[in-house]
Amino acid sequence: MKHPLLAIALGSLVFLSACDKAEQTFTQDEIKTAETLRDNALNENVAYELLESLTTEIGPRMVGSENEKRSIAWAIDKFETLGFDKVYTEPVTVPRWLRGKAEASIISPYPQPMHITSLGHSVGTPDGGIEAEVIHFATLDDLKNAPEGAADGKIVFISNRMERAQNGSGYGKAVPARSTGAVEAAKKGAIAIIIRSIGTDNHRVPHTGMMRYADDVTRIPAAALSNPDADVMERQFERGKPVTVALNMENSFDGEFITQNVIGEITGSETPEEIVIIGGHLDSWDLGTGAIDDGAGVSITMAVGKMIADLPNAPRRTIRVIAFAAEEIGLFGGKAYMEQHRDNLDNLIIGAESDFGADRIYAFATNVREQALPAMAEIAAVLKPLGIEHTGNEAGGGPDISPLRAIGMPVANLYQDGTRYFDLHHTADDTLDKVDPEQLTQNVAAYVAFTYLMAQHQGKLSKIEATESQE
Amino acid sequence: MKHPLLAIALGSLVFLSACDKAEQTFTQDEIKTAETLRDNALNENVAYELLESLTTEIGPRMVGSENEKRSIAWAIDKFETLGFDKVYTEPVTVPRWLRGKAEASIISPYPQPMHITSLGHSVGTPDGGIEAEVIHFATLDDLKNAPEGAADGKIVFISNRMERAQNGSGYGKAVPARSTGAVEAAKKGAIAIIIRSIGTDNHRVPHTGMMRYADDVTRIPAAALSNPDADVMERQFERGKPVTVALNMENSFDGEFITQNVIGEITGSETPEEIVIIGGHLDSWDLGTGAIDDGAGVSITMAVGKMIADLPNAPRRTIRVIAFAAEEIGLFGGKAYMEQHRDNLDNLIIGAESDFGADRIYAFATNVREQALPAMAEIAAVLKPLGIEHTGNEAGGGPDISPLRAIGMPVANLYQDGTRYFDLHHTADDTLDKVDPEQLTQNVAAYVAFTYLMAQHQGKLSKIEATESQE
Repeated sequence: MKHPLLAIALGSLVFLSACDKAEQTFTQDEIKTAETLRDNALNENVAYELLESLTTEIGPRMVGSENEKRSIAWAIDKFETLGFDKVYTEPVTVPRWLRGKAEASIISPYPQPMHITSLGHSVGTPDGGIEAEVIHFATLDDLKNAPEGAADGKIVFISNRMERAQNGSGYGKAVPARSTGAVEAAKKGAIAIIIRSIGTDNHRVPHTGMMRYADDVTRIPAAALSNPDADVMERQFERGKPVTVALNMENSFDGEFITQNVIGEITGSETPEEIVIIGGHLDSWDLGTGAIDDGAGVSITMAVGKMIADLPNAPRRTIRVIAFAAEEIGLFGGKAYMEQHRDNLDNLIIGAESDFGADRIYAFATNVREQALPAMAEIAAVLKPLGIEHTGNEAGGGPDISPLRAIGMPVANLYQDGTRYFDLHHTADDTLDKVDPEQLTQNVAAYVAFTYLMAQHQGKLSKIEATESQE
Repeated sequence: MKHPLLAIALGSLVFLSACDKAEQTFTQDEIKTAETLRDNALNENVAYELLESLTTEIGPRMVGSENEKRSIAWAIDKFETLGFDKVYTEPVTVPRWLRGKAEASIISPYPQPMHITSLGHSVGTPDGGIEAEVIHFATLDDLKNAPEGAADGKIVFISNRMERAQNGSGYGKAVPARSTGAVEAAKKGAIAIIIRSIGTDNHRVPHTGMMRYADDVTRIPAAALSNPDADVMERQFERGKPVTVALNMENSFDGEFITQNVIGEITGSETPEEIVIIGGHLDSWDLGTGAIDDGAGVSITMAVGKMIADLPNAPRRTIRVIAFAAEEIGLFGGKAYMEQHRDNLDNLIIGAESDFGADRIYAFATNVREQALPAMAEIAAVLKPLGIEHTGNEAGGGPDISPLRAIGMPVANLYQDGTRYFDLHHTADDTLDKVDPEQLTQNVAAYVAFTYLMAQHQGKLSKIEATESQE
């Protein structure tokens, strides 16, 4: 919420414009249709049925797994059954990483078994595992600031705790320990790194997630302890005695293979070449069943497409729902999509990905040129009865959308309440029971109103400023 | 709460007796000391420190494990350090069951890995595991009512859900599926049984717990699915297709060995031969760290002993704090204790075990002869400011106390709020973070007032009626 005054000004504009039809971007009929879709969505069960199907009939959808392959067939079938008039896939080349076992236990001073999981793309330990003294750092910065050789021959333990926040802001602060901890630890001589899970829960379910190596730094195994296990480790350190851990991890890479973005379209009635993109990612981590991350996003946006497909007349523009591939291991689907479609950028009107669970959407933000803001305010007014505030114009669009945003595509975000998202994120606990069916319908209601109005909207949105860095 | 009118009548008696000193069992000084102990306990940290120590320095304390052995040394050391004037152990002979791996996955119609744990004392599967069709029963009764041979060559799945309740009443209703499911399933021809966990949570942490075989019925492997996994299994059954599961469990027995009840005493100043028993059980399941079950009970009652040991004068009777052995696998410590002390029954005045976590105590109940009820009401009046209601005279005393109660020892219960107890019970999630330090102090406050007054109380309590069956 960077521009509160602007938001208030826009709110007033919408209010005034009700008395002055010439100011309106959308006709009364269009607004009425959006409102009807919104209200009907609250009584629809389609998204939940899709999510129930995906988590029951497929379950975990780890890139490169048999289940991921089955999920692609599932998505094609669902798009077709739901009435999308064009269903196809586009290739995405990805590495295949194979997770083997991950076991750890404290050997001394007080032996206890630990619950641990390998971080995504981590190497394994040498055969038979390692046993070494642990060196404890409260934060990644403390590790970076340690003297050279500080961790020689040791296992680094970083215990930073992620903070809970509605907008998930604790994640960005805590996650560098996961992403770059192995590189920083290896620079100090460490032979492995274990971190406190990047998550806000206190259950015995460690959080996986991607980590990265650097070309010129030794690749060491990287894993996450569940938060109660990290507590035990910290408390053992408080005793002031050396802590020794046995760690055994078996991971490997098995070349590259080709997976697919799965795409369903409702073809536009007037300017079908103009595309409104919504979607989620179809792949998930292997530990859970990918309900909140991101079966929910796929199900919400598929359900939106179905509702619009069921209208007597298709909206002007084409609605393209994308079930992105291989998001978890580094936005491979989103990046491939951008490369394959950058030449058609002018026709990609706006994009919005749902990838933050399915709790109540509380905020709507955009990233468009100033001249499009009045239209966005009219959309925001339709979302407002759902309890959604219009909060500014600096949206990111979602992970798989970010490569397109980086080259100039306008984007929007419908922000889910993320208060409990990181209790579950990347854990075995990401299962259907964590999704509240009622809040899920509110998500569909918001997305369907937004999507319909953007597909009905006339006049292109100018591209936004391209950025070098991608989300 | 079987006698509400009686409870009201007793309340009035206490009120009246304030004006009529002759009616009082306890002197004003004794009540004052109990109240001071109670209030001081709310500002004491000893129980939490003990529990922190036990869960950090020992952790899981499965009968027969190295950690269990260490926990006995821990308890002896703590009793001595806390100022108990007599510390000793008594032998308990138990079987040693060794848990091996337990793996399961749905093979068809929709392959998914499952989170599962062997039930206590279950046999393993044949080497390499089994793969078989699953037959689903909603309840144990449905299984019992199935025709002979109904489960021939199949794996039985019982999906009954435990209900949440403050007093834990859902447990008794749900747990027979765990205790006797294997026998009933084998009678119908099953080759294994898997049950929905007996627990109220929705996390990927299956609940273990004891099961029993019958001498004349084939012993089949028995395991529990985590509740989200049981949900998936049920939803796959709803598709109406055959469900096949692969199950691999490796468990074994390794003879018998001798473990120890660990006992600390505050010797009575006037009638040291008369004993007030409090305690908890020191062993735990191996999956968690035994914080709520039952590190809490051991810590609460040890802290009570310390507070009373710190008084300028010991109370009249001896206070005996027992850290029972091998409760989880079938009350071995409690049964051995009863056998070893039944000849001294007349001197065992009353017993109360804390074994239901450490959330707020909300009710006080006794099981004493009628003539002792006025004294119990005076104790209840001291507990009342802690928010504890006096709820009757049909207490069980706690699992390890139940063998003594069954031969006639009077007992009491200080009932903890069990609303969330079965979210954690017998799972990997039974860890220190689940204990609220503030509620823990309320537990100590209640136990110290009760224990002090019972140790100060004059005149024996008559034995209650002996029962054949034990809890």
